[in-house]
Amino acid sequence: MKSSVRVFAPATVANVVCGFDILGFAVEAPGDEVLMRRTHKPGVTIRRITGDEGRLPLEASRNTVSASVEFLLQHLGREEVGLEIELHKHMPIGSGLGSSAASTVAGLVAANELLGSPLKPLQLLPFAMQGEELACGSGHADNVAPALLGGFVLIRSYKPLDVVRLPFPTELHCAIVYPAVHVPTRDARQLIRSKVLLKDAVTQWGNVAGLVSGLFLNDLGLIGRSMQDVLIEPVRAMLIPDFYRLRELAHEEGAIGFGISGSGPSVFAFAPDEHRAAAITARLRQHLLSLGINSLGYVSAINAHGPKVLSHELV
Amino acid sequence: MKSSVRVFAPATVANVVCGFDILGFAVEAPGDEVLMRRTHKPGVTIRRITGDEGRLPLEASRNTVSASVEFLLQHLGREEVGLEIELHKHMPIGSGLGSSAASTVAGLVAANELLGSPLKPLQLLPFAMQGEELACGSGHADNVAPALLGGFVLIRSYKPLDVVRLPFPTELHCAIVYPAVHVPTRDARQLIRSKVLLKDAVTQWGNVAGLVSGLFLNDLGLIGRSMQDVLIEPVRAMLIPDFYRLRELAHEEGAIGFGISGSGPSVFAFAPDEHRAAAITARLRQHLLSLGINSLGYVSAINAHGPKVLSHELV
Repeated sequence: MKSSVRVFAPATVANVVCGFDILGFAVEAPGDEVLMRRTHKPGVTIRRITGDEGRLPLEASRNTVSASVEFLLQHLGREEVGLEIELHKHMPIGSGLGSSAASTVAGLVAANELLGSPLKPLQLLPFAMQGEELACGSGHADNVAPALLGGFVLIRSYKPLDVVRLPFPTELHCAIVYPAVHVPTRDARQLIRSKVLLKDAVTQWGNVAGLVSGLFLNDLGLIGRSMQDVLIEPVRAMLIPDFYRLRELAHEEGAIGFGISGSGPSVFAFAPDEHRAAAITARLRQHLLSLGINSLGYVSAINAHGPKVLSHELV
Repeated sequence: MKSSVRVFAPATVANVVCGFDILGFAVEAPGDEVLMRRTHKPGVTIRRITGDEGRLPLEASRNTVSASVEFLLQHLGREEVGLEIELHKHMPIGSGLGSSAASTVAGLVAANELLGSPLKPLQLLPFAMQGEELACGSGHADNVAPALLGGFVLIRSYKPLDVVRLPFPTELHCAIVYPAVHVPTRDARQLIRSKVLLKDAVTQWGNVAGLVSGLFLNDLGLIGRSMQDVLIEPVRAMLIPDFYRLRELAHEEGAIGFGISGSGPSVFAFAPDEHRAAAITARLRQHLLSLGINSLGYVSAINAHGPKVLSHELV
């Protein structure tokens, strides 16, 4: 029996510009790590969190990682199990990169491993969504589903939950830049209007259909042309420093598409290779620095496989 | 040189339930036929129309077939050419089956043939859209594009025009029933609200993405689950006799999905084979008859190739 396990789960880019609340994909880096140990005392406890600057709760029922593992244990009728969690965060909180989703998924995958893998990845999704509800105030799946499954994921429907894995061009690389400004997910959602023009919605679902087609057809041009958001981006762009100039710069460096990651403030671009993705990340960070804004930058392929078990110990 | 040509162009189902204004597909039957002859006198004339009960204009500039051919000749700088048109309509006008699109496309393909095929099918699309504008008051492409190209077509964007051909499961069959009640396209559009709830739009584009994915994945179940329309159907269903009962009956006979064709009043269903498509058509027509409503019924595979040149004569 495994006595401890260390699991990595990836950051994710939700919405993918036109697919608000229904699309997301996972990257190779950054991502969070959970080290989980079986203990003799029943119940889930958080032993330590690093990389969060002391912002995340250590109380088990309030922390999204431990709380979602508690949901899982209850569901499996395994409340006698004791689990102790160390969470190592390697990305900023509130960055729009699915930070809470990565932690939650790493915890659920670790717990499932220690229990002998009773559930398949997709079966862990409802528990991850309960965790998201605790973290963000709404149980969305567009970060947790790709964090759990890897690759591109479509959430066709929430009631009932219907999740579809989409293919993607393997040459696709992702540039991500997090400008160190604060945009809480709750506030970013509240800015969005509850009613929209039907004609704008038609434009949006034309682009959603185009993006999905481009992924299936391996058509970078179609993917890029479809990465337009006439509904959400115009509102959320206001929260991101010099958003439209960042977009221009990304395209100058060869981006096929550019937009806000999740609710921001991170932005991302797709590039046809790693070299150009690196150039985009560097150019955007340089521009932000010229505005006096610090940033973090990442360059990554699409993560096809989701979470990784990095190591384990046997009893 | 060809002196005359006879062309068939297919009926089309626009919207495909969730893809309002962006999706459409072509069927094998019904469809319209155009017989076109070169004449010595320059200009486009309509010689005869059958099957329209005298409803379509014979004046060249007001008839969508001749007018779109005139647009084509102007574009090609071939105004010296004389063309005489016979239009044979084999489907009702105002049925929601792309009646005007089929006629227009048949005319354009015939004219292009007689001119030595200077343009490819996709290049004829703008002229067909001008014809649609004349017929329906708006230059939509969700009927003319599949009528011209065959198969399933996505119109990702109108400005600029961006058309994507989608694959489809070859076993997919279509049941179509036209209840003989009058619903003009213009009125059907005017019922639709100009503003919608964002949450409904999200539901809709989740389904659009699901339908497109299902077509690529050959997944009949996903196609069926995605054929839901929370925005347009609830309004347009009111114009169709006993719509919700027709849907129940279609599903009882094995439909994987059911909805309004274009702006109605025709309804259509997808079935996994021809046998069940025939059973659906029969059952729906029987029910309409029990309500005292006459109908026309069709059973068809998806038309993969679009218009057909049926015959031609050489000079």
